[in-house]
Amino acid sequence: MEFEQAWLTYTKRDSGKETEEIKYIRLSMQGKEQDKVIQNSILELQRAFAGMFGRELIVCRKPEQSVCLMLTEGMQAEAYHIYEDKGEVTIAASDSKGILYGVFAFLRQVQTGSPLDGLDLRKAPKMPLRMLNHWDNMDGSIERGYSGASFFFRQNQILVDERTVTYARLAASVGINGVVINNVNVKDAATWLITERYLDKVGELADIFGGYGIKLYMSLNYAAPTELGALDSADPLAEEVRSWWKEQMKMVFERVPNLGGFLIKADSEGRPGPFTYGRTHADGANMLAEAVAPYGGIIIWRCFVYNCQQDWRDYKTDRARSGYDNFKALDGQFLDNVILQIKNGPMDFQVREPVHPLFGGMTQTNQMLEVQIAQEYTGQQRHLCYLIPMFQEVLKFRTYVQEENDTVEEIVSGKTFGQCNCGMAAVANTGDDANWTGHDMAAANWYGFGRLAFEPELSAEEIAKEWIRLTYGADKQVEETLLFMLMSSWKAYEQYTSPLGIGWMVNPDYHYGPNVDGYEYSRWGTYHRADHLGLGVDRSRQGTGYALLYKEPNASVYDDKRKCPDELLLFFHHIPYTWKLKSGKTVIQHIYDAHFDGVDMVDEMVERFRKLEGKLPQKQYLRMLERFQHQKEHAREWRDQINTYFYRKSGIPDERGREIY
Amino acid sequence: MEFEQAWLTYTKRDSGKETEEIKYIRLSMQGKEQDKVIQNSILELQRAFAGMFGRELIVCRKPEQSVCLMLTEGMQAEAYHIYEDKGEVTIAASDSKGILYGVFAFLRQVQTGSPLDGLDLRKAPKMPLRMLNHWDNMDGSIERGYSGASFFFRQNQILVDERTVTYARLAASVGINGVVINNVNVKDAATWLITERYLDKVGELADIFGGYGIKLYMSLNYAAPTELGALDSADPLAEEVRSWWKEQMKMVFERVPNLGGFLIKADSEGRPGPFTYGRTHADGANMLAEAVAPYGGIIIWRCFVYNCQQDWRDYKTDRARSGYDNFKALDGQFLDNVILQIKNGPMDFQVREPVHPLFGGMTQTNQMLEVQIAQEYTGQQRHLCYLIPMFQEVLKFRTYVQEENDTVEEIVSGKTFGQCNCGMAAVANTGDDANWTGHDMAAANWYGFGRLAFEPELSAEEIAKEWIRLTYGADKQVEETLLFMLMSSWKAYEQYTSPLGIGWMVNPDYHYGPNVDGYEYSRWGTYHRADHLGLGVDRSRQGTGYALLYKEPNASVYDDKRKCPDELLLFFHHIPYTWKLKSGKTVIQHIYDAHFDGVDMVDEMVERFRKLEGKLPQKQYLRMLERFQHQKEHAREWRDQINTYFYRKSGIPDERGREIY
Repeated sequence: MEFEQAWLTYTKRDSGKETEEIKYIRLSMQGKEQDKVIQNSILELQRAFAGMFGRELIVCRKPEQSVCLMLTEGMQAEAYHIYEDKGEVTIAASDSKGILYGVFAFLRQVQTGSPLDGLDLRKAPKMPLRMLNHWDNMDGSIERGYSGASFFFRQNQILVDERTVTYARLAASVGINGVVINNVNVKDAATWLITERYLDKVGELADIFGGYGIKLYMSLNYAAPTELGALDSADPLAEEVRSWWKEQMKMVFERVPNLGGFLIKADSEGRPGPFTYGRTHADGANMLAEAVAPYGGIIIWRCFVYNCQQDWRDYKTDRARSGYDNFKALDGQFLDNVILQIKNGPMDFQVREPVHPLFGGMTQTNQMLEVQIAQEYTGQQRHLCYLIPMFQEVLKFRTYVQEENDTVEEIVSGKTFGQCNCGMAAVANTGDDANWTGHDMAAANWYGFGRLAFEPELSAEEIAKEWIRLTYGADKQVEETLLFMLMSSWKAYEQYTSPLGIGWMVNPDYHYGPNVDGYEYSRWGTYHRADHLGLGVDRSRQGTGYALLYKEPNASVYDDKRKCPDELLLFFHHIPYTWKLKSGKTVIQHIYDAHFDGVDMVDEMVERFRKLEGKLPQKQYLRMLERFQHQKEHAREWRDQINTYFYRKSGIPDERGREIY
Repeated sequence: MEFEQAWLTYTKRDSGKETEEIKYIRLSMQGKEQDKVIQNSILELQRAFAGMFGRELIVCRKPEQSVCLMLTEGMQAEAYHIYEDKGEVTIAASDSKGILYGVFAFLRQVQTGSPLDGLDLRKAPKMPLRMLNHWDNMDGSIERGYSGASFFFRQNQILVDERTVTYARLAASVGINGVVINNVNVKDAATWLITERYLDKVGELADIFGGYGIKLYMSLNYAAPTELGALDSADPLAEEVRSWWKEQMKMVFERVPNLGGFLIKADSEGRPGPFTYGRTHADGANMLAEAVAPYGGIIIWRCFVYNCQQDWRDYKTDRARSGYDNFKALDGQFLDNVILQIKNGPMDFQVREPVHPLFGGMTQTNQMLEVQIAQEYTGQQRHLCYLIPMFQEVLKFRTYVQEENDTVEEIVSGKTFGQCNCGMAAVANTGDDANWTGHDMAAANWYGFGRLAFEPELSAEEIAKEWIRLTYGADKQVEETLLFMLMSSWKAYEQYTSPLGIGWMVNPDYHYGPNVDGYEYSRWGTYHRADHLGLGVDRSRQGTGYALLYKEPNASVYDDKRKCPDELLLFFHHIPYTWKLKSGKTVIQHIYDAHFDGVDMVDEMVERFRKLEGKLPQKQYLRMLERFQHQKEHAREWRDQINTYFYRKSGIPDERGREIY
């Protein structure tokens, strides 16, 4: 499959006076020049300068000026320092990954036209782990993939080709340092990834990744001991099971020594796990952690555990509680090389959810924030929905677990509890489409996720601007238009889809398009409880009590329908259509207004986009236009179905008399 | 795959005095004894007598008593005459198919314990064509198949084995004389069935069928000339297209001379057709009819043509009208060897629909009634739903197309308009499950369809009794229980699913289980239009005008909500929840009552069934019990979802205060 270069296009541009004045670029660190990461850093610089300015960069190996001998003491791992002095640019770091990130940062400066004169830039990544989780299946399909087929797997084989290298460059350029290559739902051939059948190829892939500072991880089938035919049990406390894993991991790490570790979805949505044997998640995770510990491996254990056989008639059971209820009591029981990976919200990547109460709920456990840049519930890369503003809200959320340093960002950066096995993971949005992400502008989510995990202090707007300039150059109108579109998109999507934090209302299974009752009578625990008088789920102390899982003052705010923020009101409370929101509107009028407004926002986005014809490469322009036209139509479908549903149900007309069917 | 013998078990039983007195069974017809059908008739008698009584039947070839020389003049094709005289049973017919049907009829007499002494039974089939349509794909899957995989195809190959013969025996035993082996949605390999790649095997199959008086038919891909790579067009008026088909059909019938003809789904649900070339269905069908006419072939053209890209906001377009609107104007334009195949109702095999208005709407066109014994919308062979009572209602429906002989039965029997290319077809409910039909009792629909098409004067109850006795023997309690269950089942299913003729309310795509809004905002033209005040589709003269497509007095009855039968009220009218039905109940109370009653009926069925333990073969009993337990639960799911939906929407409580969620 043909592929493009996303934001690493390095297209020809006029070299400004500043870049012409650059005489040397010095890479400065302690270590060996032969390091692959350094070699790749040099290659990247050469590629960029050749592409952008037609300038050839020659590698000089004068010892007195060399990369190897400069003192860079006191810098933390992966950090870089870029400074300019009389046309000489130095990129200093204490390790080769720092050099690589420094090179990409320097190139970003050049590409975005930022001043180089007197540049003095020091950066260290905030999150220790900055990971992509690919839900790629070995048959080449991708679970919740909206950008073509897998480029890691095809017909149960591992692919290693040119695209792999470009993928690694793109990931590394935004600071990604870990990649899980296979779907968390590990089945069929993927169970065999940890066997001789595949380890040579896994090793090849790991080496390519390693050259870009990225560790390779795999998703693990908890039932591997039985499914690989070795044992009758996968009981984590059974001695033969523990030995089996130890032997298996010894073999795996001997063959792939630079492997990062494993991601596990256990006892969730039909996946096997320790519950089968009456054991806890801690038992299961710790057993695996012991097996990988000798090799520096880590075990990432997902907290997405809930009863997916719920009865819709049951108003007591609350899926939102399940992560907390399953893991809170285990706080402190996990080994140091275990990380719990927790979705941003308690449900499943809806356009709006409260922050997961396990953040701040646990204090003695390594935690990683899981977000999803694959837009499963936010338009599936056919709608534009720039998610970085949402992720930022999550990161800034105060948990009140202690008096300060209590935000989600501080927790998963390791600052709150002094941890180093923590960070942020995103379910990836890539596939073998030429543009990697189906929707050209969905690449902003990939780019943005990496940048945000590295430097969460950046604003969503700054990140968007960087991505636009790197991808499409410096044209002012292009920048303003795409920036407006990106920054409006999440809000617009929220407006024209499910209202006020209630979520869902999508077609079951494939999760695309409106279906108000799609999950209302299902076993998935995802209800809106709308009747002719009102809607919403009572999660207050009178209801499921979920609101009380938060630390104060959050608990009191969420528990009280008069204090609860409008955008989460229906998540926490069952509210009459006639209830007045803080905005002064009734709930029903808000529903109508939001849906008409959301569509208007899309119309404006598309109208402004059309003016870019001729300013963007025509092929990309047309490709994007097609998606925007679909989004326009599909936003109307959302608007009309939601408005009609609630009009038919409530019988309350729109104050402004707009068309509802 | 292992398979059973369904109602042709011929299990050992005591031979009563009567059967012991049988000395000879004489097969009497004009023709050759070597005829395969005669051979199979003899085999069947021998198999039955050996199985039931351990008696060996010897074939005598005394000329003066032989089958070949008796005079049987004056009998119509396929008819038989069975009579007993002093222990000598004669089965007389004017053709070998008559003999075969006579043999099966005679065996039915023996098996059901009917008197043989002085037996004198003359029967001729009412419907000229009595067909099964299999929606089997060549990959082995079955569209809307609920009984395992195809036994005609696997991995793009045609299967011919022992099961094929048993299938033909079962079909012939109830009078089936035509079988379409492949899905009407003809794609991929199936397009190649009419080529050398498959014709040898098709011929083998056709010969086996032929031995049981069954003609083999195939579904045709209208776009075959282009898809087989021969031409750029499939325009039915283009000379090269017409020649191509003539050549192709010449080849096909040379290879498979006993082929019956073809079934075509054109311009429907994405299938290609003459519309692509601006031609009519008559143009398309006639072109094919001309190509097969020299070989006595017929073309069966489906009328299931509608706009499947409808906008749910559009209250004017009415899918129910589409068959009529597409075909009515073509009446008289079709060649004699074309048959229009029309579903029983205007929608799609719902549990309750009015009769299709094309019956009686056309007077100069061969018409065939299509029903579905695959229970796509009636429980998918997991729920018991005996459909023969429904088919009978359809057959007895008076169209008023002329003063008498105007029922659907008379139209498709050929009586009304003096036609002979007409009859009845059922979408089949078989697969390679051991019991053929998934649910053991779903076999009653297969059995019943054939019997009904042959002798529509039989009551659903008589047919059910026959099937029970043939399948499970003469135990009185078994008979009474299963008869009660069969005869209650359609009504029960109607009660606990969608109310008062409105239909749908199922999960999209796979059509199983309740989902009130499942199709409400879809493109399929299948809506209920429920709001907080009422529900139903206005198809009166004020609405889509569909009611007026019927002849008087039907049109006036359907058009007037006060005259319209309750069970079709919501199909024809949008009605307030508070409207009083003829039953005296309000619509909403009817909904609640029907759903509680329907579940009670299922409970009673299952309770009575449990008492058969020990009276039915244990394996079958347990297999059936499992399905009934599922039906009990699933009927509750239907009840609760429908009741909850309408309670939430209307706000009107159940008068009897039963639990609604």
